[in-house]
Amino acid sequence: MGNTFGHAFRVTTWGESHGDAVGVVVDGCPPGLELSVEDIQPWLDRRRPGQSRIVSQRKESDRAEILSGVFEGRTLGTPILIGVWNEDARGKDYEHMRTKFRPSHADYSYQAKYGIRNWKGGGRASARETIGRVAAAAIANKLLARDYGVEIVGYVKRVWELCADVDPDAVSRDEVEANIVRCPDADMAARMIELIERARKDGDTLGGVVEAVARGAPPGWGEPVFDKLEADLAKAVLSLPACKGFEIGSGFGGVTMTGSQHNDPFYNEGGRVRTRTNHSGGVQGGISIGENIVIRAAFKPVATIMRPQETVDVEGNPATLQGRGRHDPCVLPRAVPMVEAMMALALIDHAIRQRGQRGR
Amino acid sequence: MGNTFGHAFRVTTWGESHGDAVGVVVDGCPPGLELSVEDIQPWLDRRRPGQSRIVSQRKESDRAEILSGVFEGRTLGTPILIGVWNEDARGKDYEHMRTKFRPSHADYSYQAKYGIRNWKGGGRASARETIGRVAAAAIANKLLARDYGVEIVGYVKRVWELCADVDPDAVSRDEVEANIVRCPDADMAARMIELIERARKDGDTLGGVVEAVARGAPPGWGEPVFDKLEADLAKAVLSLPACKGFEIGSGFGGVTMTGSQHNDPFYNEGGRVRTRTNHSGGVQGGISIGENIVIRAAFKPVATIMRPQETVDVEGNPATLQGRGRHDPCVLPRAVPMVEAMMALALIDHAIRQRGQRGR
Amino acid sequence: MGNTFGHAFRVTTWGESHGDAVGVVVDGCPPGLELSVEDIQPWLDRRRPGQSRIVSQRKESDRAEILSGVFEGRTLGTPILIGVWNEDARGKDYEHMRTKFRPSHADYSYQAKYGIRNWKGGGRASARETIGRVAAAAIANKLLARDYGVEIVGYVKRVWELCADVDPDAVSRDEVEANIVRCPDADMAARMIELIERARKDGDTLGGVVEAVARGAPPGWGEPVFDKLEADLAKAVLSLPACKGFEIGSGFGGVTMTGSQHNDPFYNEGGRVRTRTNHSGGVQGGISIGENIVIRAAFKPVATIMRPQETVDVEGNPATLQGRGRHDPCVLPRAVPMVEAMMALALIDHAIRQRGQRGR
Amino acid sequence: MGNTFGHAFRVTTWGESHGDAVGVVVDGCPPGLELSVEDIQPWLDRRRPGQSRIVSQRKESDRAEILSGVFEGRTLGTPILIGVWNEDARGKDYEHMRTKFRPSHADYSYQAKYGIRNWKGGGRASARETIGRVAAAAIANKLLARDYGVEIVGYVKRVWELCADVDPDAVSRDEVEANIVRCPDADMAARMIELIERARKDGDTLGGVVEAVARGAPPGWGEPVFDKLEADLAKAVLSLPACKGFEIGSGFGGVTMTGSQHNDPFYNEGGRVRTRTNHSGGVQGGISIGENIVIRAAFKPVATIMRPQETVDVEGNPATLQGRGRHDPCVLPRAVPMVEAMMALALIDHAIRQRGQRGR
Repeated sequence: MGNTFGHAFRVTTWGESHGDAVGVVVDGCPPGLELSVEDIQPWLDRRRPGQSRIVSQRKESDRAEILSGVFEGRTLGTPILIGVWNEDARGKDYEHMRTKFRPSHADYSYQAKYGIRNWKGGGRASARETIGRVAAAAIANKLLARDYGVEIVGYVKRVWELCADVDPDAVSRDEVEANIVRCPDADMAARMIELIERARKDGDTLGGVVEAVARGAPPGWGEPVFDKLEADLAKAVLSLPACKGFEIGSGFGGVTMTGSQHNDPFYNEGGRVRTRTNHSGGVQGGISIGENIVIRAAFKPVATIMRPQETVDVEGNPATLQGRGRHDPCVLPRAVPMVEAMMALALIDHAIRQRGQRGR
Repeated sequence: MGNTFGHAFRVTTWGESHGDAVGVVVDGCPPGLELSVEDIQPWLDRRRPGQSRIVSQRKESDRAEILSGVFEGRTLGTPILIGVWNEDARGKDYEHMRTKFRPSHADYSYQAKYGIRNWKGGGRASARETIGRVAAAAIANKLLARDYGVEIVGYVKRVWELCADVDPDAVSRDEVEANIVRCPDADMAARMIELIERARKDGDTLGGVVEAVARGAPPGWGEPVFDKLEADLAKAVLSLPACKGFEIGSGFGGVTMTGSQHNDPFYNEGGRVRTRTNHSGGVQGGISIGENIVIRAAFKPVATIMRPQETVDVEGNPATLQGRGRHDPCVLPRAVPMVEAMMALALIDHAIRQRGQRGR
Repeated sequence: MGNTFGHAFRVTTWGESHGDAVGVVVDGCPPGLELSVEDIQPWLDRRRPGQSRIVSQRKESDRAEILSGVFEGRTLGTPILIGVWNEDARGKDYEHMRTKFRPSHADYSYQAKYGIRNWKGGGRASARETIGRVAAAAIANKLLARDYGVEIVGYVKRVWELCADVDPDAVSRDEVEANIVRCPDADMAARMIELIERARKDGDTLGGVVEAVARGAPPGWGEPVFDKLEADLAKAVLSLPACKGFEIGSGFGGVTMTGSQHNDPFYNEGGRVRTRTNHSGGVQGGISIGENIVIRAAFKPVATIMRPQETVDVEGNPATLQGRGRHDPCVLPRAVPMVEAMMALALIDHAIRQRGQRGR
Repeated sequence: MGNTFGHAFRVTTWGESHGDAVGVVVDGCPPGLELSVEDIQPWLDRRRPGQSRIVSQRKESDRAEILSGVFEGRTLGTPILIGVWNEDARGKDYEHMRTKFRPSHADYSYQAKYGIRNWKGGGRASARETIGRVAAAAIANKLLARDYGVEIVGYVKRVWELCADVDPDAVSRDEVEANIVRCPDADMAARMIELIERARKDGDTLGGVVEAVARGAPPGWGEPVFDKLEADLAKAVLSLPACKGFEIGSGFGGVTMTGSQHNDPFYNEGGRVRTRTNHSGGVQGGISIGENIVIRAAFKPVATIMRPQETVDVEGNPATLQGRGRHDPCVLPRAVPMVEAMMALALIDHAIRQRGQRGR
C-alpha cells in the first residue's frame, strides 16, 4: 500500500530497482493533452544516473515507453502507463546485501515489515522508484504550463555547509542547468563540485538542501484543513528517498522573527492583491495567495559509503559491511528534478480539485 | 474538502471558530475500547485558551460531549462524534475583520478560494479547529498505549532564539507540564516566559519549535513509497495552523554531516536489532525501525499583533489594520498538544494499516 | 469504517438509533449555496416515521439543526454538520433484544464483527441512520437543480405482487405524494394500501420495488471503469437497509430481449444526440448520455414481525423471539425518499468530479 | 479517474483494447505469497476470446507477464504489475467506427465526456479491460483460499428465457467447465448453446444472468453503512461491461415473500450460529454471517450485431451502421470469470479491512 499520490491526478508507481522494469500509472490526466515520449524523456534524462562525474555511475539509459492512455498523440482521459526497462540489474555484486543490513538504508525496515525483501538492491526504496514520479510530473508540468502558466524551478541551495545565494523569484532553469551540481550560484557551484569530488575520493557522502519555486499559481489552490497545500507539499517532498526535512517560506528561519517582522503586508498592484514580502511562501491558511510558492527539502548524505561499517546480519549477528562497487557521493544534483516532480504532482492535484469545487 | 485525515483511523473535523460548535467524527476506532468524556477532557484542557497568562485569553471552557459511537462505556466500532459548543463567539469586535484582510491570516486566501468567509474570526483556519483533532487524538493515544505501549511526549524546544536542551529519550510529560511554557529545560523555560511576556507588552508575537517523541513503536509502521511514515507525519504537522517547517531525526541539521557520521550502525541488544545512534529519527525508508521517533515542527509568530499594519480591504483599497482586543503572544505552549495530537493520529493510522497487511 | 460516501461531495453519517443523536457531516459542498434548515426539513419529514398509518409509528419529530458550514444563510465551502436529536430512545422494551438475535436483522452480524453492539435497537443498521443521508441529499438536490436543472422523482413501483404502471419520463412528485403509499398509479396505490393494512393486522410484513428517475442530467457523468455511474448508483442503493437488488434501465428484464431489440438507436433531435428507446437507462459504458436515468431497488419485507420466531440467544442456545411493540408492515413508502437521496448523492458526486476533469 | 477498485487490496487497471497492452497494478497484496504466471494464466484463459465457437473469435493469446512485485517466486508486498500485449489490434476494419456511434456502445458517451476516444474499438469500455481484473483476481483467489478457505464458483444461470436449475451450495467448478456455455445444468446448457448458435446465425445477440457463490467466508466481512458487503459487491458487478442488474440472496424475487417467509431463522449447529434458510444471501446489515454469499448479475445482449442499425455520425447526421466482421453472440460464458473476479476482489478487500480493525 501507499504507492499512490494524489486525489484528482492519481499517480501510482510500480517496480523494484532490480526487477524487470519500473514505471507509473497516471489516472486523472484530462483528455486532449498532446503527449509523446519526447515530452517525458528530457525529465528522465535530468534524473538518470551517469549524467555527470559527481553522481551515481549506474548504467541505465532510462528510455520511457507509453503503453496506454494516448491515442494519435493526445491523451484519452484514461490511465497512462509509462514504463522503463531496467538494464543494470544483473544480480552480481549483491550477495553481501542478501545477508547483511546496510546501515541507514531500508534493508532492515523492509525485512521487519514484510518478512521478505528484494535484496538485490534497494527494491522500492531505491531512488530508481522516482522514475515513475518524474515521468508523471512531466505530464503535470505540461498541464500546469498550458492551463495556468505555472513554471517550477528547483536548484541546489546547499551542500554540506556551502550555501548558495539564489533569488527564487528570478532564477531560470538555464542557470540551474549551467553546471553539473545544478546550483545557479556559479561560484558556490564550483566549490560544491570540488567538495563532492573530495568526498567521493574519501569514500564518503554529503547531504544538502534543494530549494524549489512555483511561479504563476493563482490564488485558491489548497484545501483546508488537513489537505493544506503546504501539508501536501510536505508529504510529497518527505516521500522522496533520503529526505529528512521540509520548509515553506520562512520555515525554521521564521522562528527568529517577531510577528511584526514576519507578517506580509497586503497592497494593491494594478487591481491584484499582493504582499510586500513573502515570508508566507505563497500560502496562507493552506491556500495559495498568488505569490511565488517557495519550498526547501533537506537531504541527508547518501547511506552507501565506501568504508567499513558496523551492522548485523539477517540472523542478528554482529557483522562488518565493506563498501564496494559504485558510490554516489551526493544525491543533490539528481534530487533537484525529484523535488520539482513532487511539487508539480502536488500542485496539479490541487489545481484539478479546485476546478471541481468552483461551481458549475 | 480536505477535512479528513487518515485511511484506517479516519478523523473528520467540522465547525467554525465563531459558529455554533466545533468537533470531530472518528471513523475506524476499533470496538470495545473503554471511552468516556473523562478520557478526552484533559487533552482539551491542555489545548484550550486561558490556561495561563502567556497564551490566548479567549473565554472558552471547551467541554466535550460524545454523541455517538460509545455504548455502556465502550466503543462500538461505529463513528464517534465529539462536539464542543462555542461560547465566546459573540460577533462583536469583528466588524473590522469583515472589511479588511488581516496580514498573514487566511482571510484573503479563503475569500479568494471560496468567494465567502465567516469573517467573525478565523473560521476553519482558527486554532479552534484543532479541538476536534485533539479530541480524536485522545482516543488514538488510548489505543496506542493499550495495544502497543506507545507514549508520545511533546515540548517546546525553542522560542525565538532561545533553544532548550532536552533529551527526547528520557523526557517525561510531568517535566513538560511543570511550567506554563511547556519547556522541560527549567532555566530556559524561565527565560522563554520572560521573553513572551515582553512580547505581549510590546504588542508583538514570537514563534518557535515544538519537538515530539514517540517511544515504543514497533518496527514496520509506514507504507512505502508515498505514504512513508515521515511523509504522513510531515503532512500531519504542516496541516496545523502557523506551521512552516518539519524535520525528522537529523532534519536540516543532518546536511552538515557526512554519510560516515550520519549512518546509524546496527547492533544486537538482547536479540533486538537496534541502532547506536538515531539520526534516522526512528524511520528508515519510510518505515519505523523500533527506535524512538523524533520530529520537530516550526511555528511562525502569531499573525495577530497589537500594532497598526498595512493591508487592503475587500475591495482592494489600501487600508490600515489596528490591533485590538485579545492578543496571543506565542502559540507554542498550546502547539505542544496539537503536535502530539497529529503525531498520534498519524501513528495509529499506520498501526491499523499494518495490522491488515500482516496476513491472517 | 465505511461511513463515508462520495469522492468530491463526501457524506459521513454518524449516530445510533438509540444513542443521543444521529446526523451527517458533508464535506465538499461548494461555497455560496443558500441553505437553511427549511431546505432540509421537508425531506426529513418525508422520511420520518409516523407520517401515515401504514408505516412505523415510532415517535420522532426529527428536527434538523445545522451546526457548521453555513454563514449568513450561505454555505462556506467548509464541512456542514447536521444533527437530529433522538427522542424515542428510552431503552425500555429492549431487554429481549439484548439477549436474543432477531432473525434477518443485523444483531448477529454486528455481534460477530465487533464483539459488541448497541442492543437497544438496530444501532447503525437502523433505518434511522438514513436521516443523515436524506439531510445531505437535500443539499445535493439543491445543487443538482440549481446547477444542472436535474430533478429526481422516486415512487413505489411494486408491493408484493402488485405492480404499478408509471411513466418515469412524465411522473411528478405531486402524483407520488398524492397517497400515503407513494405510488402514482392511483388504482394500484389503493390496492397496495389495503394489502399493507392486512399484513399489519396479520403481524406480517411486505417488500417491494422503488423506481426512481433523474431527469435533466447532461452527458458525461460517470467514470470508467470501476466508478461507472451505474456502479456507484448500485452501491448507493444497496447500502440502504433491506435492499437486496438493483437494476438500471432494462435490468433483469433486458435478458429476455435480443441485441436488435435492446439496442437504443441514436437520432438527432434539434442538434442534440438522443436515443429512440432508453433500455440503457440513461447510461452507456458507465457514462450518462443525456437521457433519463432510471433505476429500481428491491426491498425485502421488514424483518420485524409480530409472530414468534426461531432463533438463538447470545450464548447460542435455542430461543424463541416474540414480536412486541411497534411494527412497520412495509418500508416502501419511506424507502422512496431514501432511494431518491442515494441517487442524488451519487449524481452530485459525479457532477463535481466531472467539473474538475473538464479542463480549465 | 475511476480506474481503481478497493481500499486495502487496490486494483488499478490500464490499457485500451486497441492500444499496445492492457493490464493491472495491484497494491496491497500481502508479502510472502507464492506467485507466478502459472497462477494467473488459467484465469485469463477462461476469460479470453476464441475459447469456443459461441463466443468472440478475436485472436488473442493473452499471455500474462509479471513485471514487478514478485521476487524469487514470492510477493514482496509491493505493487504487482501484470501486463498482456495486444495482438489483434491492427486498426483495419475500424474506419466505420471512427465516424459513426455504435448504438448502446460507449462510443457516444466517451466522445461526450472526453471530446476524444480511441475509435479503433471500445478502448477502455471493451471487455478487454477486464483482463487486468481477472489477473488481479487470480491473486485474490489465492489469498482467499490460503487464508480463509474461501472458494468462489460462478456459472451461467440464465440465457434469454432459458433458466438453469443449480444448487449454489453444491455446484463445483468442474461441473461449470463441463460445457462451453458454463452452465452446470447439462440439459439446459445444451439448449442454451443451440439458442446462442441460432442467434449468431441471425446476426443477433442474447443476454442472461450469471450467478456466483462464495463458500467459506467467515462472519464479520463488510463495513456498515455505505461500504456494506452487498453494496461493494453490487458496485463490483455493475462495473462490468454490459451489466444492468444485481441481486443478493432473494433479490427481486424476495419482494413476493412476506416477512415471516423471508426471515432466516437462526439455529445452533455444533456451536456455530447458522440460519435454516439463506434468503439473506449470506449478509445481514452489510456484514457476512458465515453462510454462503450468493449473487446474481444481469447482462444485456451484446451491442454489436450483424444487422443494419439507425444511428448518427460524429457530426450528428443520421446514418446507418452496417454490422461487419466478428460478432460475439453471447457474452455470458466469458462473463462467468469476470463476475467471479469482481466477487473475489470485493471479498479480499473486505477481508483485509476487517483484519486491521480486529484489534491487535
